Amino acid sequence: MIRQLVIAMIFANLATISVATSQAAPAQSSVVGFADTLMPQPSQLSTQEGRLAITASFSTVTDQFRDARLDAAIARSLVRIENRSGVFLPTTPQTNAASANLVVSVDGPEGTIQSIDEDESYSLEVTSSSAHLRAATVVGAMHGLATLEQLIQSDATGYFIPTVVIHDTPRFRWRGLMIDCGRHFIPVDVLKRTLDGMASVKLNVFHWHLSEDQGFRIESKAFPKLTEFGSDGLFYTQEQAREIVAYARDRGIRVVPEFDMPGHTSAWFVGYPDLASAPGPFQIERKFGVFDPVMDPTRESTYKFLDTFIGEMAAIFPDHFLHIGGDENNGVEWKGNPRIQDFMREHNLKNTAALQNYFNQRLLKLLSKHGKHMIGWDEILTPDLPKDVMVQSWRGFDSLAAGAKNGYNGILSAGYYLNLMSPAAAHYAVDPLPDHTDLSAEQQTRILGGEACMWEEQTSALDIDSRIWPRAAAVAERLWSSRNLSDVEDMYRRLEVESLRLESLGLTHISQEDVSLRQLSGTEQIAPLQTLASVLEPVPFDERAHLQHANQLTPLDLLVDALPPDPPSRHNFELLVHAYLQHPGGRTGAQTELTGKFNEWINGEPGILRLMADSPLLAQAEPRAQQLSELGTVGLEAVSILSSGLPAAAGWKGARLAVLDEAEKPQALVRFTVLKPLRDLVNAVPEAGGGK
Amino acid sequence: MIRQLVIAMIFANLATISVATSQAAPAQSSVVGFADTLMPQPSQLSTQEGRLAITASFSTVTDQFRDARLDAAIARSLVRIENRSGVFLPTTPQTNAASANLVVSVDGPEGTIQSIDEDESYSLEVTSSSAHLRAATVVGAMHGLATLEQLIQSDATGYFIPTVVIHDTPRFRWRGLMIDCGRHFIPVDVLKRTLDGMASVKLNVFHWHLSEDQGFRIESKAFPKLTEFGSDGLFYTQEQAREIVAYARDRGIRVVPEFDMPGHTSAWFVGYPDLASAPGPFQIERKFGVFDPVMDPTRESTYKFLDTFIGEMAAIFPDHFLHIGGDENNGVEWKGNPRIQDFMREHNLKNTAALQNYFNQRLLKLLSKHGKHMIGWDEILTPDLPKDVMVQSWRGFDSLAAGAKNGYNGILSAGYYLNLMSPAAAHYAVDPLPDHTDLSAEQQTRILGGEACMWEEQTSALDIDSRIWPRAAAVAERLWSSRNLSDVEDMYRRLEVESLRLESLGLTHISQEDVSLRQLSGTEQIAPLQTLASVLEPVPFDERAHLQHANQLTPLDLLVDALPPDPPSRHNFELLVHAYLQHPGGRTGAQTELTGKFNEWINGEPGILRLMADSPLLAQAEPRAQQLSELGTVGLEAVSILSSGLPAAAGWKGARLAVLDEAEKPQALVRFTVLKPLRDLVNAVPEAGGGK
Repeated sequence: MIRQLVIAMIFANLATISVATSQAAPAQSSVVGFADTLMPQPSQLSTQEGRLAITASFSTVTDQFRDARLDAAIARSLVRIENRSGVFLPTTPQTNAASANLVVSVDGPEGTIQSIDEDESYSLEVTSSSAHLRAATVVGAMHGLATLEQLIQSDATGYFIPTVVIHDTPRFRWRGLMIDCGRHFIPVDVLKRTLDGMASVKLNVFHWHLSEDQGFRIESKAFPKLTEFGSDGLFYTQEQAREIVAYARDRGIRVVPEFDMPGHTSAWFVGYPDLASAPGPFQIERKFGVFDPVMDPTRESTYKFLDTFIGEMAAIFPDHFLHIGGDENNGVEWKGNPRIQDFMREHNLKNTAALQNYFNQRLLKLLSKHGKHMIGWDEILTPDLPKDVMVQSWRGFDSLAAGAKNGYNGILSAGYYLNLMSPAAAHYAVDPLPDHTDLSAEQQTRILGGEACMWEEQTSALDIDSRIWPRAAAVAERLWSSRNLSDVEDMYRRLEVESLRLESLGLTHISQEDVSLRQLSGTEQIAPLQTLASVLEPVPFDERAHLQHANQLTPLDLLVDALPPDPPSRHNFELLVHAYLQHPGGRTGAQTELTGKFNEWINGEPGILRLMADSPLLAQAEPRAQQLSELGTVGLEAVSILSSGLPAAAGWKGARLAVLDEAEKPQALVRFTVLKPLRDLVNAVPEAGGGK
Repeated sequence: MIRQLVIAMIFANLATISVATSQAAPAQSSVVGFADTLMPQPSQLSTQEGRLAITASFSTVTDQFRDARLDAAIARSLVRIENRSGVFLPTTPQTNAASANLVVSVDGPEGTIQSIDEDESYSLEVTSSSAHLRAATVVGAMHGLATLEQLIQSDATGYFIPTVVIHDTPRFRWRGLMIDCGRHFIPVDVLKRTLDGMASVKLNVFHWHLSEDQGFRIESKAFPKLTEFGSDGLFYTQEQAREIVAYARDRGIRVVPEFDMPGHTSAWFVGYPDLASAPGPFQIERKFGVFDPVMDPTRESTYKFLDTFIGEMAAIFPDHFLHIGGDENNGVEWKGNPRIQDFMREHNLKNTAALQNYFNQRLLKLLSKHGKHMIGWDEILTPDLPKDVMVQSWRGFDSLAAGAKNGYNGILSAGYYLNLMSPAAAHYAVDPLPDHTDLSAEQQTRILGGEACMWEEQTSALDIDSRIWPRAAAVAERLWSSRNLSDVEDMYRRLEVESLRLESLGLTHISQEDVSLRQLSGTEQIAPLQTLASVLEPVPFDERAHLQHANQLTPLDLLVDALPPDPPSRHNFELLVHAYLQHPGGRTGAQTELTGKFNEWINGEPGILRLMADSPLLAQAEPRAQQLSELGTVGLEAVSILSSGLPAAAGWKGARLAVLDEAEKPQALVRFTVLKPLRDLVNAVPEAGGGK
């Protein structure tokens, strides 16, 4: 919790800075004759008029290296193109490259474990007769196939791939998504579709946060009481974990498991209280925040346990890295235990940070023994650690840079916390290597990338898709594409298309909203509620945490849980108002559309209130229905006055801004997405007796 | 295919008969002060004013028998009530029955294998302070819990259970759903949510059609080539099959596997050609229909294979029954094989039916050896078979009755083919024991129930939910509730509520339509397309089969695949028109709503055409957009004339009926749902110079 709030603060600053930056940046030039919706944008793209048609005779060949993983990746892509186009395409790679429409040339096999040094680059050359995809590795080829799928377009004549030449290589080699499966359990099928989404935007690390105060989520055969008492029965079997690892590998994604230690470990201690620094018994923690329970780093039995446990996990997770967490140990139990205090004195450990460093050093030996590199959050970085330890920074770029200056590799997560409910633009503006860095060229190479983080205090399996997608695609582009890419409007334009592609993979980030609105209102006739929902989004994470006091057992079934953060309607309304303000006097399409929307808001109120009347869960948001109508009236008035070319009566503006201020206040954990552009609209109205 | 067409014909007749029946039947009386949405309707229900509130102190106790299965069922129900109400309810059964709000009293354990004689009855008594659920078995208690969930209601004051007394017992003991996973593979998670849906409407048999000409879908360790060559890699591992069996048992559902023999077996022969009656090699069949490949019943090696195979499957599927299919063997390969002809002569088998009877007799011995009773389709029923063989009738009630007269137990499936795209009302009108039966009381006891069937020629994992749900709930009610229940309008009223409850279980039968419309049009702005979709449904199965010539590899990604059969809008529009026709002269709410709809249809056309312009898959339905607009005009004109009280100009009616006739013609595999009521509307208009 504390980490979340600190992050929120850091992030609020970052967002402000970066929005300013992005507004100042020049727009990307769009390529003529080609509707570019690629996300992430490739390093180099050139195009010419022409197209490769998708027809029933479309054939595919692998003409160099080929294995089951490559075959499966090609088959998946062809099935998707098939579903998109309605044209059945044979999925069995043939052998005659000369007559094939898609030739996939991969140099050769890579290691059985995908490393951070994997060559992920590819090139794709599409002519009007064929497409040629070249890559050094299968992973590179998979990225090329993802690009190929994104290239598919249609017009009245059919489905086709435009003629392009692409040379593409990622800017950063660690592009991750962390999912906290500790605070709320996420089922295997949800993780699988998430991995499909990741692959489609070229993310390459699934960081699986598997243990928390609120739940221990993976079966240990050596220590079965971890899940028997620490999981509420909600955990992954080893079989399922292997299934996820294999599924990820098939999509060019590494799986880095995290076992957060020595803090955030309440759930471990329910079954194994002897691991703890205070006497038990322990309970699964239901509240969210930072808690006292912490492993006892002074007893050899702790390391014996961890040796066995890490050995067991190392056999399930082949990745070279294992994440040990290491964050938010408040030291309370260490200070309160005389035996531990004695140990610190004997070993000349001056404070709890020094004791945690001792713990990390011991842990490091165990990881090495089992063939793993260590990665952990900022707190683990102490000068004594060897240089192959890697840091994941929730504290921000300065902390990351300090590590790099001391010779440590690192990745950035501050600025990429999806649970904060920030707009995609804010995440997009955060760069692991910002322009203003004072790092040397060599130090810069130590910044390996970043990870979007999905913490699960306020999210469950039902709404996780809309909390991750499509915003994670904006982070994916930031980590893959050029730093110079900063056209936020173009990002949003492509993000809207990518969102539909993600939906085609089975993700429910769009559909879940209506499902939840139907469940909340008990009817399929939800049109009025959809009007309200279209201008609302969840409040920021910290605001909800402050207002709701939820714990792990609180049902997540309110209006706020139905709403996606940063919906396309938010950005589109902003564009509409600004388009209107270009010519407020003329009768433009923008004016008609805007007036239509305002009338819809005004007319929606009775229907919304009717749907809320019998639904106590929805009723909490009743004031929002009335405010929506008021906002519609403010909008209509503003447009009416602006169109007339006459000034408003004195006091008009102040009264209308007060309506907006009122709508800004917290209510039912949801906020309006339209207030800023509405404010712009009201402020654009000239007032009698005053300046504009 | 032939079976499908025969069924379609039988069914068309049945539907006509039964709609007439249901219209003649008296409406059910509704209970005062209680919004009854129970589905299926219980045997006995009485109610009085009052409610049991759902509050945070709601507690649950099992005061007699208790096991893990019962605990899990209670926990599931409480979590659902929790998600519905937003109130966290402790799920750990407590021990103090006196203070509990929900007391579950189960007499004792039943057998480890759920039998067809299981006592499924329960009673539920709700007062303003507590609910008492009593059942002889855990399965009975599960049905009671399903009813309890359906009772939850809300108003402005909160969520509650109305005070009712229910005594409930099923009319039939075999209430099944068959899913054909051979023609299209259905993933495990889809099957699981289907089982959840089945449990919610008290269906108790999942008939798992696991092998077909188009695919062999379950792993055999003894004969791995069955799936290696016969499944396209799409099959259930034994582990997954056990998972499904356990999941079903946890929900009071038996799993009856079907291995269709001796025909429908092309996929077996790809890996094991020696089983066949003709020389190989064989291919997975891609087309749909009845094919020649058939097992060789004359070789001992066939029975040796089947002995091992059935033994292996018997260990996975504990149910007392194993379904052997037995349908649609055309005898061609038997007639064409001299060795088989010799065998028939030697054994005095006069025709291929006699040879199939010989095969069945041999198979029966193998089933008995492995502890299984035989069930098969109509064709297996020959006089020589012992009386414990059971028949599933796709041919219809007469065939079923003939079996019953000869002493055989049977279930009905004719009339319950969900793939035919018939309205729920048509299925609802089909009774396994119709009023006009000439069966004796004893013979009637041999009719054990029925099964809804989901054949998968035209359905894949993406749209299966909307093909099964909510219509299967109408079949479930027919099989559980009183024969006298025949108020179709009340059924539709409750079905609409049940549909939302089914959605809360994770079923996608409602949400998939918009997902597909977005995918087809490539945008989230699908409002015009939703207008069109709201008055369309898929054409009947046989019409599509005739028009499309699809095979197993044809992508199912057209507009028709997005549309649910028998959408609520169909019935609701019918009600609206008939409500309007009660008072066509007055300015009623019905008139306003109707006029609004017609205008929406007219105004929708440009938007629909714009969305179709770049989507060749959608463009096939372009004529429907124009027709929609024309239908809107016809409707507006009719309402306008009827409201005026004046007659239409001569020729008006004929011209307008011609528009409806035109709209009736096949187009893009979709049909309008509104033509019949529109016809009623036009016919209600008096014409100048003629009678009404």
